[in-house]
Amino acid sequence: MIDTYFTNRRSVRKFSSREVYDPLLREVLAAAMKAPTTSNMQLYSVVVTRDEARRAELAKLHFSQPAATGAPVLLTICADLHRFTRWCEVSGADAGFDNTITFLSAFADAVIYAQQVVTIAERQGLGTCYLGTVTFNAPEIAKLLKLPKMVVPVACIALGWPEGEGEPTERLELDGLLHSEEYHDPSDREVVEIFKVKEQYGPNRKYVEENGKKNLAQVFAEVRYPRAMNEEFSKKFQQYLHENGL
Amino acid sequence: MIDTYFTNRRSVRKFSSREVYDPLLREVLAAAMKAPTTSNMQLYSVVVTRDEARRAELAKLHFSQPAATGAPVLLTICADLHRFTRWCEVSGADAGFDNTITFLSAFADAVIYAQQVVTIAERQGLGTCYLGTVTFNAPEIAKLLKLPKMVVPVACIALGWPEGEGEPTERLELDGLLHSEEYHDPSDREVVEIFKVKEQYGPNRKYVEENGKKNLAQVFAEVRYPRAMNEEFSKKFQQYLHENGL
Repeated sequence: MIDTYFTNRRSVRKFSSREVYDPLLREVLAAAMKAPTTSNMQLYSVVVTRDEARRAELAKLHFSQPAATGAPVLLTICADLHRFTRWCEVSGADAGFDNTITFLSAFADAVIYAQQVVTIAERQGLGTCYLGTVTFNAPEIAKLLKLPKMVVPVACIALGWPEGEGEPTERLELDGLLHSEEYHDPSDREVVEIFKVKEQYGPNRKYVEENGKKNLAQVFAEVRYPRAMNEEFSKKFQQYLHENGL
Repeated sequence: MIDTYFTNRRSVRKFSSREVYDPLLREVLAAAMKAPTTSNMQLYSVVVTRDEARRAELAKLHFSQPAATGAPVLLTICADLHRFTRWCEVSGADAGFDNTITFLSAFADAVIYAQQVVTIAERQGLGTCYLGTVTFNAPEIAKLLKLPKMVVPVACIALGWPEGEGEPTERLELDGLLHSEEYHDPSDREVVEIFKVKEQYGPNRKYVEENGKKNLAQVFAEVRYPRAMNEEFSKKFQQYLHENGL
């Protein structure tokens, strides 16, 4: 039997005033280091933001979303090629990690670690919410947290004790994303069937109406993530990677 | 108290002949879908490889590492921008997701999902090991699994019932990667201190000797991940992304 924690979990966007003590936070962050990592290189770092003024600045860079403005702790988890490169340098080794493939390993390491932090924290009763906006303002976040070159913020977690329960969310059915042996490219009819659970979900229908659109796909593609915005942020992130030698 | 599962976990690279039944696998893969995902878009897919001949082919693309050749199940988890784009198309919405920033969201979604699969599977007693080689031969893996454009393999998990226990591994101390409020750029002396736990770890010292190097950093930088190799695989992956419109 799978633990009900996993089948019931929800992200939390409202936090109580109860303090998150440092020993508990450290215990969570330390335990999560047993998460898998590429060749045991641990190509990630975590920056903890607790200071009120700095939290306010960081929250702005996450577009002042409520989970960011209301959380007592923000964790910025970074793909870190700097520490490993420094180690090689002081050890007289030629470090060639300023490239795409190593960055992607570090990206994966950082996200695996982030998700382990989420799971362990939630199992302790804490609430968490990823701030998916982290890559949108990566250069500004890097500046605020004084990240050196080759340290790229890739996951941010808002963390605190939950105020009430998180909102439930609908998910696709497993068969919508599971492929046996080969990828099955769905027909138009199958695509509609896969996303029916989202289109028919009550809160989504209200959301479509509020945005004056015909369906949920249009809200995602034209309101939330329009092409022009995606392309602008893509250019910005590519430029930032370039400046980092990546 | 943090559950000892988290503080003791190890990756498993040897698997027994005990069968992984499909209902259990589906239950694990379904439960993991409650993992967080960017704006609830679930920009990922999973391809299950069980067929013996196909497993052998896929294992070769993972450089025939023992975890790949010996596992009864290989899960290839993909950043999937194809399904969401198809949904937008059939819904009359202009989908602009063929860009870097959306690919990174999908990459994060896929890795978060992968790590949730690992945790839930391991809690059921299964053993897992990531194959970090997935990005190295991404185009060949995509071809084998018939992935359409904009479906990029980013995490691969070897899965099965463990044969014996996984090997223990050393990790850095928490303070080696934890930063309070701002990134602390370590001095040379601090870098040496941070990596001491790795340099002094018995099996690593043996490994350095076997490779005829002076220290572990040299083994990583010059034997395992030399610059020329990293740059070659980086070019290949960039080219592959380009062909995918990403």
